[in-house]
Amino acid sequence: MSELRQDPTTKEWVIMAPERGKRPQQTLGKRITDQILEWDASCPFCPRNEAQTPAELFRIPTASHNSDWQIRVIPNRFAALSPEGSTARRESGYFARSMDGFGVHEVIIESHLHNATLPLMPYEQVENVLIAYQQRYNSLKMNRQLKFITIFKNHGRESGTTMAHPHSQLVATPIITPYYHKRFDVAHDYHADMGTCLYCDIIQEEMEKGERIVAVTDEFIVFQPFASRMPWETWIVPKRHRASFGLLPAINLPELAKVLKHVLLCLYHELDSPAYNLMIDTTTTEDEEDPYYHWHIRIMPRQSMIAGFEIGSGIYITSALPEETAGRMRQCIG
Amino acid sequence: MSELRQDPTTKEWVIMAPERGKRPQQTLGKRITDQILEWDASCPFCPRNEAQTPAELFRIPTASHNSDWQIRVIPNRFAALSPEGSTARRESGYFARSMDGFGVHEVIIESHLHNATLPLMPYEQVENVLIAYQQRYNSLKMNRQLKFITIFKNHGRESGTTMAHPHSQLVATPIITPYYHKRFDVAHDYHADMGTCLYCDIIQEEMEKGERIVAVTDEFIVFQPFASRMPWETWIVPKRHRASFGLLPAINLPELAKVLKHVLLCLYHELDSPAYNLMIDTTTTEDEEDPYYHWHIRIMPRQSMIAGFEIGSGIYITSALPEETAGRMRQCIG
Repeated sequence: MSELRQDPTTKEWVIMAPERGKRPQQTLGKRITDQILEWDASCPFCPRNEAQTPAELFRIPTASHNSDWQIRVIPNRFAALSPEGSTARRESGYFARSMDGFGVHEVIIESHLHNATLPLMPYEQVENVLIAYQQRYNSLKMNRQLKFITIFKNHGRESGTTMAHPHSQLVATPIITPYYHKRFDVAHDYHADMGTCLYCDIIQEEMEKGERIVAVTDEFIVFQPFASRMPWETWIVPKRHRASFGLLPAINLPELAKVLKHVLLCLYHELDSPAYNLMIDTTTTEDEEDPYYHWHIRIMPRQSMIAGFEIGSGIYITSALPEETAGRMRQCIG
Repeated sequence: MSELRQDPTTKEWVIMAPERGKRPQQTLGKRITDQILEWDASCPFCPRNEAQTPAELFRIPTASHNSDWQIRVIPNRFAALSPEGSTARRESGYFARSMDGFGVHEVIIESHLHNATLPLMPYEQVENVLIAYQQRYNSLKMNRQLKFITIFKNHGRESGTTMAHPHSQLVATPIITPYYHKRFDVAHDYHADMGTCLYCDIIQEEMEKGERIVAVTDEFIVFQPFASRMPWETWIVPKRHRASFGLLPAINLPELAKVLKHVLLCLYHELDSPAYNLMIDTTTTEDEEDPYYHWHIRIMPRQSMIAGFEIGSGIYITSALPEETAGRMRQCIG
């Protein structure tokens, strides 16, 4: 018998149906994995092709050569949003409300190597990626028109990426995103009832139970949530209450880099280099000090497609129990 | 400049960024399209393999041979939900609320031919599929524990299907799904303000504007919504207000079959046999007569992947303007 589980952070239900993992898959097209080289002449993110990208916003140079770089952040050349334009609403009919595509869309190039990948990078390079995330976050939050900043990574074809070169993205919007709205409302109601942070209390309960815990370090807890939306979904949550990723002290970044690399490396081994999405889930730029929300990282391996039922209903069906997959992650991380 | 558009049925925003359609795609793995035969010995949905499926729930036999069939409906052998079990909530901790995976999960086999596909089927067979949808819907709504019935179709690998044989699915749940909740709340507020149905008023405005209309028949309007979540998203909406698909008179099914086939055939030609999801969007089983909601069919071609930004934020980025794609659909349907 499968189980319906309620996500305590959204009040949405998930269907946990481990039996579905056993169903046959008819041949619908196979995937070819191309061999990827260290440098690709046609890749605009590769060294020596810097002129193909818009002007750089941030760089971490290599220690030895200042002209070389370890990280670059650039505006997305095919940006979904752009910093020109206004946030005024327009109405071209009662049911046609729109505004300019105002916002920011950046690319964080995670390595000069075309074939690098976060789980196999040195700790220091993963830390560089996090430094770039935070630097751009804190720089953009100064613009009061940008209400919300989403940092995310798509890795592998099934994740939605179109570029092989390792990169993350940042999108800053003049609107607060609907999923955040929902999570915030739930956390706010909880705080009104209990006077405490929902996420602080969830990690305390998870620590007491232990079965979904993957790792615990000085500052972070890694676990797989009770109502995971996807198999092997893994969260990295700071122990200390902070609503905003922007406020994480720089001194914690080396530890976070180590935790993140270990989590991604275990997923890499357990799932044979899976496609995945990574998201920094954080509060709005205006409420960085709020007592309700609690920033964290979500990693969603894309083992199955998002299909008609999920799109139409908003209910996810997953075929793996977090208690089982968390146990395997625990063994891997050791 | 891209544009942010608000979906009047959910109040969520979509980013319309046509420039993104021009971005380069690095090679991340190609798709192989296998040649599919009319009959597959290993397919449990093919004729002569009926014994491999659970006991049939509904059948449309062929006129000539009663032992042959045009449509079969069967319980999903790898069901996400099952009709045993209870709807009582359990709590294994403050943040771990669950219930039995109670519900119904069925498969509608749309043809005895392994390689058939809705857009290329005869009208009569498309009508048979709709008859099966409605028959199962109206049969299951009698069970008062099933609050919500979702009928959907995943076609093609990118849509999330695992089976090549043409089929749709039905999932009935003891909970009302979150996306319906949201849409219903918006429609209910609109009705409280205006005293009219939101969807009736939207189709009237779309008819007056015309630019997103694909086709108009006696009973149905086909259009591409102002804030489409995906390129070429197309809705088929009945002109007459009805909250529930279950209440559509049988006399309208031949016309609906014709409209549906034409829409799918145009998408088939315009997008070279795309993967797509099809969903019947309808009210709860308890509120079939309500004045707020308005059932319709949504067709979502899967031209791009659902990536980290969409999963994390709930905002979709689309690279096609419905005014342009609706124009092409209009010419095709002509």
